[in-house]
Amino acid sequence: MPKRPALELREDRAVNDVPATSNGTVLQAVYRNGPLSRAQLAEVTGLSKASISNLTRGLLTESLLTEASAPRSGRGQGRPHVLLDVNPNHGWFAGVRIDEDSMRLALTDLKGAGERSLVVPIQHEPQELAELIGQQLGALASREKIPRARLLGLGIAVSGIVDHRTGICHHSANLGWRDVPIGELVRRATGLPTRVENDTNAVAIAQQMFGRARDVTDFMVVTLGRGIGAAEFLDGRLYRGPDGGAGELGHCTVEPDGETCRCGKRGCLDTVAAEWAILDAARRAGLAVATLPELERLAATGSVPAMTILKRAGGALGLAISHLINIQSPQLVLVSGIDAELGAIMLSATRQAVENSILPRRLASTIIEYHNFDENLWARGAASIAAHHFLVNYGADD
Amino acid sequence: MPKRPALELREDRAVNDVPATSNGTVLQAVYRNGPLSRAQLAEVTGLSKASISNLTRGLLTESLLTEASAPRSGRGQGRPHVLLDVNPNHGWFAGVRIDEDSMRLALTDLKGAGERSLVVPIQHEPQELAELIGQQLGALASREKIPRARLLGLGIAVSGIVDHRTGICHHSANLGWRDVPIGELVRRATGLPTRVENDTNAVAIAQQMFGRARDVTDFMVVTLGRGIGAAEFLDGRLYRGPDGGAGELGHCTVEPDGETCRCGKRGCLDTVAAEWAILDAARRAGLAVATLPELERLAATGSVPAMTILKRAGGALGLAISHLINIQSPQLVLVSGIDAELGAIMLSATRQAVENSILPRRLASTIIEYHNFDENLWARGAASIAAHHFLVNYGADD
Repeated sequence: MPKRPALELREDRAVNDVPATSNGTVLQAVYRNGPLSRAQLAEVTGLSKASISNLTRGLLTESLLTEASAPRSGRGQGRPHVLLDVNPNHGWFAGVRIDEDSMRLALTDLKGAGERSLVVPIQHEPQELAELIGQQLGALASREKIPRARLLGLGIAVSGIVDHRTGICHHSANLGWRDVPIGELVRRATGLPTRVENDTNAVAIAQQMFGRARDVTDFMVVTLGRGIGAAEFLDGRLYRGPDGGAGELGHCTVEPDGETCRCGKRGCLDTVAAEWAILDAARRAGLAVATLPELERLAATGSVPAMTILKRAGGALGLAISHLINIQSPQLVLVSGIDAELGAIMLSATRQAVENSILPRRLASTIIEYHNFDENLWARGAASIAAHHFLVNYGADD
Repeated sequence: MPKRPALELREDRAVNDVPATSNGTVLQAVYRNGPLSRAQLAEVTGLSKASISNLTRGLLTESLLTEASAPRSGRGQGRPHVLLDVNPNHGWFAGVRIDEDSMRLALTDLKGAGERSLVVPIQHEPQELAELIGQQLGALASREKIPRARLLGLGIAVSGIVDHRTGICHHSANLGWRDVPIGELVRRATGLPTRVENDTNAVAIAQQMFGRARDVTDFMVVTLGRGIGAAEFLDGRLYRGPDGGAGELGHCTVEPDGETCRCGKRGCLDTVAAEWAILDAARRAGLAVATLPELERLAATGSVPAMTILKRAGGALGLAISHLINIQSPQLVLVSGIDAELGAIMLSATRQAVENSILPRRLASTIIEYHNFDENLWARGAASIAAHHFLVNYGADD
């Protein structure tokens, strides 16, 4: 499995299409690879030592960078290294994850840490929602005693098809949206530079920036929830598809003559394995359960209909994941949104279906992990997109 | 559907990982976007007008480029444009497509045209095969009166998993190969710089360089034959996967409890829709046919078992293609290797399965074409990879 060499500049074009400023190039390199010495920084950016010296002087003055000494490793007993790092305390970034009934708002520092968050119920009307984001952002900042001037950007993660360049959500089944300029509405309501991203992509970006996928070039995130989505990092870049609509795993057909999906076609993975579909099936089977963990507990006590529903859902999910693996050959697949213990029976069927359906030689080379990550990862991913955009464009006119 | 602006430099990093020389940058830009004026060339390459003037002078002297006058369009009545183009007659490139029983060898000019080819039976022993390529290349060149010195490079297209950087074929089920350094063997046998590529990828590269996919950024090629493969251009770049093993469409599971495939697992697309599988099923049904078109003719006269076999194969193929579309959202899918007329019944089932299984909104935005391209396209694709490598590295030391 090829790993990036330690000093290669990670490429972020796919996260951010705007060309970096010179300051942005330096900040991005330190952010992704730091702490770095000035010599290393010249190496990864391809800029001259004189330029690096100049640019870092300015960025230190503006408190974007910090400096620390580190002892030289190895036999050399000369001067200690001076290492540069991004100053996490330079400012705060907001991330909003818009779900069907609620939104989660998080504030993180420039390095994606120090998170503070809140959750509030929402309506779907875009203008009202934008205003609610503005109010709640003010409330959270004041609760945390963060001055308004230290808020530097905002990212939104929303399910559906999003154009990250324009901030328009072209289609969201969960929210009933068509061509909603949510980025612009929220920018006006908050006064902050605003970026919008598909929610599963936001998780994948977070996983690559400070999560499990830091050191792989090709990985997938599969998120389970109201719908099933996939995000794809290929060759180190987020692949969105030409219209932002890649990764529609939930609409892969798993049962050709199956039930009708809300997309209009039959037998989509969503109709078998999305949370709503599983609970629907349980209701139709007369099972008195309201949540997935309850259904799992029922199956664990020997309920055959509960077991059947979970195995069908898990098997279908595994089949769809196997298509991703056979088509893309990722190094890593992160399946998220279901607790490994609370969803043991379903996930066991998923694992089995994946193992039965991927090329035998992939069994050893593809790592598949199932874990229910921190709910905040969505919002944190959204905030990290805003932080990244801020860094890459630092010093540009707009 | 986003189209590239006319003057954007097409990116070929995925075809060729070696950084271009300055000469290579100019040649590549002219090759992909030409004919171009010097001013346009400066614009697409980002090089200064002085550098362009210098570099093109050298390349004209070395007969890599040609110059022609063109009248100015529009109202301007000034001097005519002088346009630069790649000189197709600078040299010849060989492409070899290695199939299970035979190989096809083609010679093309620097622009992928003027093709001359031959087909000869082969054995699979790598050293013998490399020597056969050397002999046949000599025979074809002498038949076509092309002096040895004008042969400038060679590309090989082979089914299976190939590392295009090292020229090693890690695995080919058709040829029974494991870790065969076919690139190095052929380089020694021919004395030519040699590039190796997966055969479906070679077709995709040919389609993007001079075929149907010139103006799209995201497309797939699906090839039918002894096995079913897929090649993926994503964001304008060939996606091979981290180990060169992406695009294993033939091993997507379409019938979970189906027949055992030669890969070891059950119900792969290959076991239902590869040519050998279809003919096996026909044999088992007692049908006296030896080829796919014969089976189609039998079905057209009302044979129910023939019809059943073709519909099952076509339906499975369509289901697998729908996964590609839902996961990647390409603008274009080229399904190749089966004649649209001779395979009408099977392809009708394929079309129907695709339409039933892709997201309804994709029906309008994804173009799917079924055509049995010229058999030479594989070998021509291989030659174009060699030509491309020659251009991009022109003037480098190696």
